[in-house]
Amino acid sequence: MPSVDAAGEFETIERLFAPLAHPEWGRGLRDDVAVVPSRPGYDLVLTKDALVESIHFLPQDPLGTVAQKLLRVNLSDLACKGAEPFGYMLACNWSSRCGWPERKAFAAGLKQDQERFGVALLGGDTVATIGPATFSLTLLGWIQKGRVVGRNGARPGDRIMVTGTIGDGYLGLQAVRGMLSLADERIETLITHYRTPMPRVEFAEPVRDMATAAIDVSDGLVADLGHLAETSGVAMELTLDSVPVSAAGHAWLDGRVDPEDAMIRLVTGGDDYEIAFTIRPEDEAALRREAERRLLRLTCIGQVSEGAGVTVLYGGEKVTIKRPGWSHD
Amino acid sequence: MPSVDAAGEFETIERLFAPLAHPEWGRGLRDDVAVVPSRPGYDLVLTKDALVESIHFLPQDPLGTVAQKLLRVNLSDLACKGAEPFGYMLACNWSSRCGWPERKAFAAGLKQDQERFGVALLGGDTVATIGPATFSLTLLGWIQKGRVVGRNGARPGDRIMVTGTIGDGYLGLQAVRGMLSLADERIETLITHYRTPMPRVEFAEPVRDMATAAIDVSDGLVADLGHLAETSGVAMELTLDSVPVSAAGHAWLDGRVDPEDAMIRLVTGGDDYEIAFTIRPEDEAALRREAERRLLRLTCIGQVSEGAGVTVLYGGEKVTIKRPGWSHD
Repeated sequence: MPSVDAAGEFETIERLFAPLAHPEWGRGLRDDVAVVPSRPGYDLVLTKDALVESIHFLPQDPLGTVAQKLLRVNLSDLACKGAEPFGYMLACNWSSRCGWPERKAFAAGLKQDQERFGVALLGGDTVATIGPATFSLTLLGWIQKGRVVGRNGARPGDRIMVTGTIGDGYLGLQAVRGMLSLADERIETLITHYRTPMPRVEFAEPVRDMATAAIDVSDGLVADLGHLAETSGVAMELTLDSVPVSAAGHAWLDGRVDPEDAMIRLVTGGDDYEIAFTIRPEDEAALRREAERRLLRLTCIGQVSEGAGVTVLYGGEKVTIKRPGWSHD
Repeated sequence: MPSVDAAGEFETIERLFAPLAHPEWGRGLRDDVAVVPSRPGYDLVLTKDALVESIHFLPQDPLGTVAQKLLRVNLSDLACKGAEPFGYMLACNWSSRCGWPERKAFAAGLKQDQERFGVALLGGDTVATIGPATFSLTLLGWIQKGRVVGRNGARPGDRIMVTGTIGDGYLGLQAVRGMLSLADERIETLITHYRTPMPRVEFAEPVRDMATAAIDVSDGLVADLGHLAETSGVAMELTLDSVPVSAAGHAWLDGRVDPEDAMIRLVTGGDDYEIAFTIRPEDEAALRREAERRLLRLTCIGQVSEGAGVTVLYGGEKVTIKRPGWSHD
């Protein structure tokens, strides 16, 4: 069944995507399938996230960073499980705004990130659509057999840790929408975070070795801790005062009348792509050494106890959260 | 980033998709990732095909058969490589017409086909979109190490074989568009083929053991043989008179003024999802026994020689084909 498409399927695959294919496993993208050798002693770890124009990215976002965001949100899912990514399958539904230059930019963005994160294209599908552009990616990785970090291993007494800073996902979206009054370089940093968040791939190994439960912060810190608490059958206490915030985040907080409300926005906004996880207290020192070696900020933001749900504290007082995070559907 | 969706992400996953998940590897669809044990001695085979409303299926097609078509076009890709499927990752972009009853029908269609074809859902993503409904599926299978059937192994002297019949893909699309005047039961058969084509999963093993090159007929028989000829560096001769046609196809052919033109439409229409492949002549008898055991029609439709390109013969004369198949992009 045909559809009119100025920049055709053949050229897109042959000229833009074939150079990104894994030299052996991708079979030059000419064979309908990818073939990957088994890795005895390892489990295959798979994740799949789609980005839809006007929902997960904006029509004015450059296609190069859309491609990078697509890869990175999936990399984040694998990193928080402790897995090491190796390749991906890609489905592109190009909208009418995706001409040749835009597709070229998309492929160039992927190329850059493939090199940065050590993954290769394995195969996929490319079609034209009359609707918004939609991209779907299945990311594959390996992990030593039985070593995947679940959501269900948090135990009373564990500490809650988070990598990097929280809230730039929320502020980034405000920034691309032109709704923030901050210095230009702050705005730029936030837009960069929104378009190309940095998955904590380099911290997957320590997480694999020491986390009792882990998740990447995509729905919002409070909502995501809620997932861990529910699946583990424990209660979690989040100390809002300890939540790490970026320089841009602090600049924004300084201008707020109600700092409590502002902090709540940052921990419920989502799209941070940091790893939130729990550890036994005796592992904290070793974990901090791993973070320091990687120049990665690591913060203890709360603790696990018996019970259920997430309690949020601010200045020693219990805070009521009406909406713990976004739903993407 | 939120979007309004009456039938939410959580309910869709929890109530419709979780029951379809692989009991162990899918992790209840609650963990962002699927985890599949390695299979030593086997290669992992992956394929990914997307279906877009108004391009690959029609707005009036029931969602249950759309789900089945999505799974089946991917199963067809794995079957022609000789691989055995085990699971899939699914991305659903629901349009406004996809309320709860439609999603339920989608899941019911998948359930039926999962049981029929022995595969299970591993994970995925579900979002609402303002555009046409779009579904993308990554199918995974195993094959004994190094045994994948490529497109590049056809050699001069090989015979060209095809399973089933050719042309119902073309006629099915005409039928759903109301453009055929045939008896009601013929129309129904053709619409069923269009909506739920039958991938030749049961013939994957003989293809793996005996085919020198193979492809599934999706772009159109002539175009797909062209892919085999090009990748193998050989010429192929297709005898139009030998191409197997269904009872519905014969009924349609009977009403044509120009039988040559009619046959050309059938072999260039695509969406047949049969396996076209090449074998050494000495393997034909053994292959026919395998087909008979499965009650599967198997036809020799031409031969491989030195040279390049596909030559089409009809009544002993060379036929000119203007357009060997559809482009889906």
